[in-house]
Amino acid sequence: MKELQTIANLTNALKVIPGIGNKSAERIAYEFIKMNPEKVDSLINSIQAIKKDLSICPICGSYMENNKCQICLDSTRDDSLLVVVTSYKDVIALERLSSLHAFYHVLNGSISPSKGITASDININKLIQRIKNNHFKEIILATDPTIDGETTALYISEILKDISDLIISRLGYGLPMGANLDFADELTLSHALKGRTIYKK
Amino acid sequence: MKELQTIANLTNALKVIPGIGNKSAERIAYEFIKMNPEKVDSLINSIQAIKKDLSICPICGSYMENNKCQICLDSTRDDSLLVVVTSYKDVIALERLSSLHAFYHVLNGSISPSKGITASDININKLIQRIKNNHFKEIILATDPTIDGETTALYISEILKDISDLIISRLGYGLPMGANLDFADELTLSHALKGRTIYKK
Repeated sequence: MKELQTIANLTNALKVIPGIGNKSAERIAYEFIKMNPEKVDSLINSIQAIKKDLSICPICGSYMENNKCQICLDSTRDDSLLVVVTSYKDVIALERLSSLHAFYHVLNGSISPSKGITASDININKLIQRIKNNHFKEIILATDPTIDGETTALYISEILKDISDLIISRLGYGLPMGANLDFADELTLSHALKGRTIYKK
Repeated sequence: MKELQTIANLTNALKVIPGIGNKSAERIAYEFIKMNPEKVDSLINSIQAIKKDLSICPICGSYMENNKCQICLDSTRDDSLLVVVTSYKDVIALERLSSLHAFYHVLNGSISPSKGITASDININKLIQRIKNNHFKEIILATDPTIDGETTALYISEILKDISDLIISRLGYGLPMGANLDFADELTLSHALKGRTIYKK
């Protein structure tokens, strides 16, 4: 007897999820056999809901539920400030800071010459249009502190540099809080030195 | 803005699967957002099929599809031989050997004093009934070579010992093929020595 078809089918279907290999897929398939049917139904409903209710906001590029973007519809936000990030997860991370109550623009990726991702592959055209059609005073380029993130920030700042009265900024570089100085890499340390704050002058 | 409810719900539903932690659940939830809808539907259908079409055979305790046990209904098998295993996966492993064409009994677990699993928690009563109602010549106890597997095999052999003309056997112990002798643990090595085969006498 070969493995039962239903088990083989589920194992194959699970392998479609990036990051789930052969062994994990098999293990999860067996767990499903034993799982409480209500929990399985609840999982299926959650998967269906994410495909049905979630979409990408045509304004900011972030995820929204039921075609309503919680951020773009929030009139209490500071409409002079736009924060540019590469993913929805970055929005959630920055929203944990109560100090920032800005609007966002989610690029859904970074320019990456090594991966062949160009400016037209990510949400940059809409960003430029949005900046031209609104009256932001400052654009914070909060892309990742990686080569791709830097390239993306540089590219956007080049396009925007001729717009008068628009401040373009980048998140500060330096030591992460809670780290040990002797564990910091040279690049971080040199940025921390350049970006030092003056206590007394 | 907090994380969107649909994403949080899917993350929580995925965490119900044993072995999937917080970070994995979150990662998989985000993968679902990006996944091709047909692939998601195919995965959901496979999960639903495994809950609907798969059940446990009331005779052998293995999994069966659509209430038909491929093994118990197979009249070409040797009806004098019953192999006792702890899981369906063991059946699949043994079925890869073309040499064995026996019937199986799946215990769905091992007796485990350390985990509080007793003989009545696993599929042993039906095994005893089955042996009494049939005319097997040999019972191969193919439980795992672990303390729990040994305990289970010993328990079953004790119950069956008074049935006359019934051979009760256990899989051989020794060196796994392809291993290096100097990497074998002492217990395995001592079993390999005891179970040696004579080339010439």
